Amino acid sequence: MRVLIALGGNAMTSPDGSARPEDQRAAIMVAMEEIADIVGSGVQVVLTHGNGPQVGNLLVKNEIAAHVVPPVPLDWCGAQTQGTIGVLIMNALETSLARRGVVASKPTVLVSRTLVNADDPHFAQPSKPIGRYLSEAEAANLVAHGQTWRDQGQRGWRRIVASPEPVECLDAAAAHVLLDAGYTVVCAGGGGVPVIRNAGGALAGVEAVIDKDLTAALLARQLGAGTMLIATDVDAVMTGYGTPEPRPLGDVTVARLRDLAERGEFGSGSMGPKVDAACRFAAGGGRAIITHLSKIGEALSGRAGTVVTRDETN
Amino acid sequence: MRVLIALGGNAMTSPDGSARPEDQRAAIMVAMEEIADIVGSGVQVVLTHGNGPQVGNLLVKNEIAAHVVPPVPLDWCGAQTQGTIGVLIMNALETSLARRGVVASKPTVLVSRTLVNADDPHFAQPSKPIGRYLSEAEAANLVAHGQTWRDQGQRGWRRIVASPEPVECLDAAAAHVLLDAGYTVVCAGGGGVPVIRNAGGALAGVEAVIDKDLTAALLARQLGAGTMLIATDVDAVMTGYGTPEPRPLGDVTVARLRDLAERGEFGSGSMGPKVDAACRFAAGGGRAIITHLSKIGEALSGRAGTVVTRDETN
Repeated sequence: MRVLIALGGNAMTSPDGSARPEDQRAAIMVAMEEIADIVGSGVQVVLTHGNGPQVGNLLVKNEIAAHVVPPVPLDWCGAQTQGTIGVLIMNALETSLARRGVVASKPTVLVSRTLVNADDPHFAQPSKPIGRYLSEAEAANLVAHGQTWRDQGQRGWRRIVASPEPVECLDAAAAHVLLDAGYTVVCAGGGGVPVIRNAGGALAGVEAVIDKDLTAALLARQLGAGTMLIATDVDAVMTGYGTPEPRPLGDVTVARLRDLAERGEFGSGSMGPKVDAACRFAAGGGRAIITHLSKIGEALSGRAGTVVTRDETN
Repeated sequence: MRVLIALGGNAMTSPDGSARPEDQRAAIMVAMEEIADIVGSGVQVVLTHGNGPQVGNLLVKNEIAAHVVPPVPLDWCGAQTQGTIGVLIMNALETSLARRGVVASKPTVLVSRTLVNADDPHFAQPSKPIGRYLSEAEAANLVAHGQTWRDQGQRGWRRIVASPEPVECLDAAAAHVLLDAGYTVVCAGGGGVPVIRNAGGALAGVEAVIDKDLTAALLARQLGAGTMLIATDVDAVMTGYGTPEPRPLGDVTVARLRDLAERGEFGSGSMGPKVDAACRFAAGGGRAIITHLSKIGEALSGRAGTVVTRDETN
């Protein structure tokens, strides 16, 4: 069984959302204990992960140090987090597997890119808020330098960037080779570093962020994974979330889940993209699961989480 | 033929040493044209690269933004550069190969770690200067925060870190799998992210930098490469460098080169470590080459560069 597991922020930061180095290290050690159990059970695992708080930190450094060191573009920040999170994951998972006596698989991490269309309409209409909140005056200064910032209400202004559709995980073929050789492969961290193909055919990085769960759905399909599991901080997708009667969804079809999404049941910044990614993957015939990081094992055996399939299960 | 090519700073920065994003991108595009010719000729290539100026920039950002964002440790800076340089290399090399119609190989980049001994004596006696020069007063402030800084003379004070011996490239086995599948593999960038194995067996990052050429020699041996080529900014190793009569070395044995090194012919910060790495690799029976980035092809055919072998060639 080949499973793609997409790790959310709670696998990479402390419960209060802090992303100090020690917070990241501790959170990843907890997450890798869960992953080691899955790998130890014989499942072929592909891991991908978010990087929001980490990129946020790098952007702040870019800004504050800009008078001394030239800032690096947004896509470089994503590449940087693939390196740091990748090493933390390898060290923690290799240690957890060794403690269990699992010798059949070792972790490996690919620096990985995701192709997007240069004419993706999201470039003209950036919509994804990233990084820290600033005052209107501070934001105005960065707008003068070509960035897009938007008033987000009480907490202040925030940078808005393009979040184009992932078209192809360019490094999936290398991941395939490593999976076939028995590796647990970390790939497409942060949704992959966004690149475009110029008119002349040249590949070039582009300033954007790609939704990590949408990339995960694409990567899972490219790698022939039967299951894509999105690990997050709730046990299941809920209807009536935030009302007095929230109800967890168990087995659900793509059609039913899309119907609920259209009725506005899921938040656009949080559960919405996860539900969208799960539906995209399941629509192709696979099984998509959304559950809590600590419930991965149970969910893979059908005893926890929201399980999305194209057709009714029975 | 499997060849490991170690790219030095001039493949990653502009001629004046600047490492702005556009300088890095331009330099890597030039270097990858050279590499594409080699790959196109049917040679199996493993690439590794330095990261000094890039890590220098990250350390400055760490310092300047420390009051807002928690600084990341030195080993994380190395991991970050594997991501950014890795993406630049992949985009440039994939483009250069496609333009030549080379379809037999594609580039791929592994986030990679190098094991060092926790009790390596270099940890007690740090010796490697890194990052920018500061005034004595500025350096004193960082010394108070636990760092080691040393008076480097006219240009000011510089941070000194440990540069332990590389013991094992932990991700070489994954590189081996990818090479066997036809990939051009980028591995051990910046000498690899240094990790130690704790008493309990756990792997953990450690604040240090590993000489990229010494790691290259180790990686070349682990991967069974017949040739290790160190690409730098001179055509060959010189004796009498800086004197009125510099003489380039062509074919040379390990014994002869070590003899010259002991007599102080090579600078400790520049050519010395390259000569040391070349001797280590060649002592195991392989061929080590030191030459200019633009002479890689000629040197591989024996028409340029300093070629180091264990025994006399004839």
